[in-house]
Amino acid sequence: MNIKRFQRALEELNKFGLTDKGINRLAYSETERKAISHLINLFKDEGMSVKVDEIGNVIARREGLDSSLPAVACGSHIDTVYNGGKYDGTIGVLAGLELVCYLNENEIETEHSIEVIIFACEESARFGVATIGSKVMVGLIENDNIKNLVDKNGITLNQAATAYGINIENLKAAKRENSEIKVFYELHIEQGPVLEKTSVPIGIVTGIAAPTRFNILINGQAAHSGTTPMNYRKDAFLGATEIALTLEEIVQKEAKYETVATVGECKVSPGAMNVVPGKAEMKIDIRSTSATSKNRVKQKLLQTITNMEKSRNLQISVTELSDEIPIKIDESIVQSLRESCNSLSFPYNEMSSGAGHDAMNLATMCPTGMIFVPSKDGLSHNKDEFTSMEQIIQGVKVLIDIMMKESRIKNSPILKE
Amino acid sequence: MNIKRFQRALEELNKFGLTDKGINRLAYSETERKAISHLINLFKDEGMSVKVDEIGNVIARREGLDSSLPAVACGSHIDTVYNGGKYDGTIGVLAGLELVCYLNENEIETEHSIEVIIFACEESARFGVATIGSKVMVGLIENDNIKNLVDKNGITLNQAATAYGINIENLKAAKRENSEIKVFYELHIEQGPVLEKTSVPIGIVTGIAAPTRFNILINGQAAHSGTTPMNYRKDAFLGATEIALTLEEIVQKEAKYETVATVGECKVSPGAMNVVPGKAEMKIDIRSTSATSKNRVKQKLLQTITNMEKSRNLQISVTELSDEIPIKIDESIVQSLRESCNSLSFPYNEMSSGAGHDAMNLATMCPTGMIFVPSKDGLSHNKDEFTSMEQIIQGVKVLIDIMMKESRIKNSPILKE
Repeated sequence: MNIKRFQRALEELNKFGLTDKGINRLAYSETERKAISHLINLFKDEGMSVKVDEIGNVIARREGLDSSLPAVACGSHIDTVYNGGKYDGTIGVLAGLELVCYLNENEIETEHSIEVIIFACEESARFGVATIGSKVMVGLIENDNIKNLVDKNGITLNQAATAYGINIENLKAAKRENSEIKVFYELHIEQGPVLEKTSVPIGIVTGIAAPTRFNILINGQAAHSGTTPMNYRKDAFLGATEIALTLEEIVQKEAKYETVATVGECKVSPGAMNVVPGKAEMKIDIRSTSATSKNRVKQKLLQTITNMEKSRNLQISVTELSDEIPIKIDESIVQSLRESCNSLSFPYNEMSSGAGHDAMNLATMCPTGMIFVPSKDGLSHNKDEFTSMEQIIQGVKVLIDIMMKESRIKNSPILKE
Repeated sequence: MNIKRFQRALEELNKFGLTDKGINRLAYSETERKAISHLINLFKDEGMSVKVDEIGNVIARREGLDSSLPAVACGSHIDTVYNGGKYDGTIGVLAGLELVCYLNENEIETEHSIEVIIFACEESARFGVATIGSKVMVGLIENDNIKNLVDKNGITLNQAATAYGINIENLKAAKRENSEIKVFYELHIEQGPVLEKTSVPIGIVTGIAAPTRFNILINGQAAHSGTTPMNYRKDAFLGATEIALTLEEIVQKEAKYETVATVGECKVSPGAMNVVPGKAEMKIDIRSTSATSKNRVKQKLLQTITNMEKSRNLQISVTELSDEIPIKIDESIVQSLRESCNSLSFPYNEMSSGAGHDAMNLATMCPTGMIFVPSKDGLSHNKDEFTSMEQIIQGVKVLIDIMMKESRIKNSPILKE
């Protein structure tokens, strides 16, 4: 591969939406449209055919020797959150481009066609729903579920898509058949601290966690902080704290399943120093690649809450906001990636992905793999998101290696620098 | 006493500032000024001399047979919080007025002069500092500490006082000498649930709790809720919850000292469902009538925080916002009140006051007592604050009885209906 070419492509792409506070290249924005247009030109320069589907997914294709075979696909996304980073999504797309550049300059032909896909609207930042493009591609959502989603300026997804130049009326046309894609790989930054903390360059994803989310509303009784003895109190905040700490204990027992739980929001009412809280509301996010482990946590959480209603004399209402099913990566895919890492002499961790990715949707349709590279300090969705070029390149090499194997190259089987 | 007259006086007073949402008669407001003016007329109608001091305290005086003796004083306040109740403060002032009406109509003379005091700015609602009038009267605060206090509309206390018609430049002139007052009694609603829960009509206050307050700022590290394993987290909110729950355990061991602690405010940052909290800030209010107990709680709290900085890998900064000294009521005063209750056949609880009152400041200058009557559901600072007329009257009778004894009446020693 050509490291300088890859680095230059990344720098060029990140000129779109670059600000002092990070990259602002939101889904269906004019900035994203220009960046996509720039990439389409690069794909076409490499002789690829490019199709933009009904939700805005870009599918760039390099024909194989046998066009009747299913395609070997890779890709990711280039949209960002508000004030996002330079690496989230982008490196997966540009790794696919680099693969094609490499094949072309070495005149390597493949049995299977190769597709590089830029998925539309991966980030939930603009419309509150993540991985819309890949969900549409695999038939997980249809027009009616998303057309009325609204961004913070009151613009609907339908309006944004129209301004962007696509028509989302007939989303079914974007759905692909299982028979069209042999396998899909996504290279992505980890967005967590594990690879960095363990000083390992490559993560082979074995499962993609899916969130189960709750809103917990705790009703007690507001009271004077000085005149209300402890045993007469119905302190909603203390109820919240006990739920949060018990949840931590519960998931610590599920460590081997990499199950995690987070209370990211907690609002206390009325919120005055001299008033015992009468209400507390918190949101809970539980993730695991093991549906069994996640369900165990959920049941224990609900039992904790039921017990506490009695012990603390509180009324607690629990609303399940979502309960998604985790994805397990096929062992054969993990084994292929192990072999690629071994052949390149790159150490790897087998690990789960705690974040959602387009790959989790593709996995419902075709064999799918994910490759992680380290994130400095585990940071992402942030202008300080960072992965060194050396680390990225190792991931790109794994992707190129596996894509060449999967697409059955006909010559030059050794990856050159 | 004349129950109808008392009831009418209370109804008349509560026309000042009455709204659908509660009573709005804030300190130094035009509404309060009119109410004070109304009360001054009632005092004068009873032949009392009335003085308004430099901070706005109203001192209505009925001369005794020996004007050289120190006065026997009672009183409370008539200012309210925003959307306050009808009983907080008012019943203590009107009980003093009723005492004088009763003495006058029965032509009862007293050795000591009697003073009924309406303290200025008891509520912290407007300027953030409570019991300003009584603090000035006993010399606890001077002009420089308060003149620049600002209300939510940006009006300084100095400006508000000027508009109200007083000049706070020479507050020292409002300070009274120990020799001027023999004893001070305040009748007040409990503002807590204890009398109601125990079905006892009178509370004899044995001590007034004083708050020790802390702001706790917890710094951890914001991180992705899906990609950050539990053991790599620095979750600021979980730190906050552990402090809050441990504090609850600590004060439960101090139950016999009636020590209480409250976390009334907790803010979590960044406050998103999918982000491990990087910061949490909470305010702690600890109250006790036992300085020793309160100090024990404080030391254990600080030790908990120090331990947790290590165990949870957090940086925690603790700011002590206030550390006030509780007031112990003289045993001789408590004994006098017991005798009054016994002579009237009113059951009583001996109890501490968890809330601050003007009496706590007076207690630093002269022997001071407090009488509580029940609060429905423990509610106060609220339009639903309620004490039945029957309950109030029992408190008024105790106040009249003790005031007559203290002022050494010369005739008619039996309290008539």
